[in-house]
Amino acid sequence: MLLNEARLAACMKRDDLAAVVATAPENVTYTSGFWAMTQWIRRGPQAYALWPVAGHGEPVIVTSTATLDLVADQDAWVERVRRFGDFSVVSDEGELDPTSARQRALHELPDDGDALSALVAAITDAGLARARIGVDELGLLPGYWDRLQKRLPAATLVPAASLLRKVRAVKTEEEVARLRRAAEIAERSIAAALAIAREGVTELELARAFHTRTVEDDALPVLGCIGFGPRSALMNVQPSDRRLAHGDVIRFDVGGRYRHYRADIARIATLGEPGAEILRCHRALLAGVERACEIIRPGVRAATVFEAAVETVRRSGIPDYARNHVGHGIGLDGYDAPDLSPGSPDVIEEGMVLCVETPYYVLGRWGLQVEDMVVVRADGVESLMTTAGDIRVVG
Amino acid sequence: MLLNEARLAACMKRDDLAAVVATAPENVTYTSGFWAMTQWIRRGPQAYALWPVAGHGEPVIVTSTATLDLVADQDAWVERVRRFGDFSVVSDEGELDPTSARQRALHELPDDGDALSALVAAITDAGLARARIGVDELGLLPGYWDRLQKRLPAATLVPAASLLRKVRAVKTEEEVARLRRAAEIAERSIAAALAIAREGVTELELARAFHTRTVEDDALPVLGCIGFGPRSALMNVQPSDRRLAHGDVIRFDVGGRYRHYRADIARIATLGEPGAEILRCHRALLAGVERACEIIRPGVRAATVFEAAVETVRRSGIPDYARNHVGHGIGLDGYDAPDLSPGSPDVIEEGMVLCVETPYYVLGRWGLQVEDMVVVRADGVESLMTTAGDIRVVG
Repeated sequence: MLLNEARLAACMKRDDLAAVVATAPENVTYTSGFWAMTQWIRRGPQAYALWPVAGHGEPVIVTSTATLDLVADQDAWVERVRRFGDFSVVSDEGELDPTSARQRALHELPDDGDALSALVAAITDAGLARARIGVDELGLLPGYWDRLQKRLPAATLVPAASLLRKVRAVKTEEEVARLRRAAEIAERSIAAALAIAREGVTELELARAFHTRTVEDDALPVLGCIGFGPRSALMNVQPSDRRLAHGDVIRFDVGGRYRHYRADIARIATLGEPGAEILRCHRALLAGVERACEIIRPGVRAATVFEAAVETVRRSGIPDYARNHVGHGIGLDGYDAPDLSPGSPDVIEEGMVLCVETPYYVLGRWGLQVEDMVVVRADGVESLMTTAGDIRVVG
Repeated sequence: MLLNEARLAACMKRDDLAAVVATAPENVTYTSGFWAMTQWIRRGPQAYALWPVAGHGEPVIVTSTATLDLVADQDAWVERVRRFGDFSVVSDEGELDPTSARQRALHELPDDGDALSALVAAITDAGLARARIGVDELGLLPGYWDRLQKRLPAATLVPAASLLRKVRAVKTEEEVARLRRAAEIAERSIAAALAIAREGVTELELARAFHTRTVEDDALPVLGCIGFGPRSALMNVQPSDRRLAHGDVIRFDVGGRYRHYRADIARIATLGEPGAEILRCHRALLAGVERACEIIRPGVRAATVFEAAVETVRRSGIPDYARNHVGHGIGLDGYDAPDLSPGSPDVIEEGMVLCVETPYYVLGRWGLQVEDMVVVRADGVESLMTTAGDIRVVG
């Protein structure tokens, strides 16, 4: 299961919530296992998951009739469904394969009309109409919060996006497995790109090789910042026709989405041996990531990790190194909790998956960056990487 | 330019707006030409475009300091920028290449602190603090609307998402060119997938071949519904390990994103000659699309197109054909205006780009679908397709 059920229960108890309603795509998939394509590829389509505390009935998926095939074809652990809206499928009377049969049964559920009516019905049916309910405010259409409150006048609705972000921060083993594979695919995609790196190749050509490996490994491209030479200093560099030249830095800040889970890693290559300054700076950045990974363990403050990493980079070769964070959690979202930043209130916990990074951008010259994905275990970090952060010299 | 400036001006005049604020990724890119990666790949990061009427200053991009490299590296037609937040880049004093120099200049702009403060400053600077302003409500974080109104107590804020959707419905030639290429890439990707279609191949293998062609053509995968046999009847079918068997229908409902513009097309193949019922139904569906395309021209009601398509399908071989729409606009979003549905108030206009579709899903057996992309010209439709909608027989 993706959902960390014990952590959700603890957070709901802390906030005295009788139920949580997930509305943003990440939170719906996280709490229910249901991936509603429509809400993932566009903004607007509504799908929800209602997760009540024990004793208030079963969790419920609330989704449009046009997505019932996905409910039928997925292994969602939430089995109750409410549907809304029209969608025509033809169904014979005869025996069907299990997926089609389940879809037919779902179409036979009553049509609740629209998303909010279906959600109100789910809440009311669970005896929660007068309860204190956490509602993920991020996925609701504008105005829906007020309309929901009006339809449930005796309920106390409180925003729950930050609670769900907190729950999502500590991964289950199923999530770690997906993140490990996402990271591995990103590394394999970097290797595929570097395999064609030679003088005259363009950033776009490397990007094509990168994304081809990603889709051949059943992930979807998301983050594909690949830049050469001075363009490697553009923090969000988008591949262009710039041709690779001798001495160029190649910076990858990349990662796709594998079974809905994101990767975000960074590696550096150079065409030909790197110069002394690049070597010195990269060693310092790598030392910063390594130092962060040394001290990360349950109970350590995220701000402490930040300070240790920055201080190490400064001491190791970049005295004026400045940075506003040295990493973040990752999962269904590319920036999960915690934030490894100076003002972060977060504390490292076992099971968190972190991107630890020390980027350094020198305008007009080059950008260097090391970014590793790690999972926090009881006694420290376990790396999800299969490659070291050293500079790869190509050509 | 992507923006249909004359149409925006006319819609703003109709609604008596002195300015429009774009907040959703599609609308920011549309009105300004600026693609802020952060808001496209996650929900939460804020970027805006302020578009005033003539006489109220220049349009302004409002974005985080962490995205200024993208401003510097893109050909946005909006040149004024306000930035907010910290982000460290190192800059030498010396001469820089043009992109780096522009980025350095952008970093030297004052830091407005946070997104709303920067937007309020842009509005106030333009002399619009007491004006009637259309604010795209879709991209704002929850609570931001109220905070914006509080910071601009004399301004009249009105929701503008539907206005922007209406403006976006009539494409500029630059948009048509991108959509044409997006459609072509989808067709090429279908051809690449069918090139490996033989008995025993899996849906996932076809999907890999499909997406590989898409990324090699510089598009990003978005919609990849590819299903065999009974799975072709799942309307949002996600590729699985299902193996292709003789007699199977293969349904593609697919399209990537090329230079931010979406494709959404559908084609049918069969492994071996299709049976009589499949042929009859597919012919009826194709006739429906063809009939819709015959009558689509400026001034025709979208609801009339719906009625004509459904009626044609019924008369041509599927007497009980039922459907809640026969297509929609497409552009930066996968579902732009108009809606080709029975209750649609929309009227077809020259320059609209439409997906015209007649899907038919028979649970447990097969799904058939024809979906073409067309652009509306003065005297009818111009197809953006390079292939006909006929069944392709493979194997």
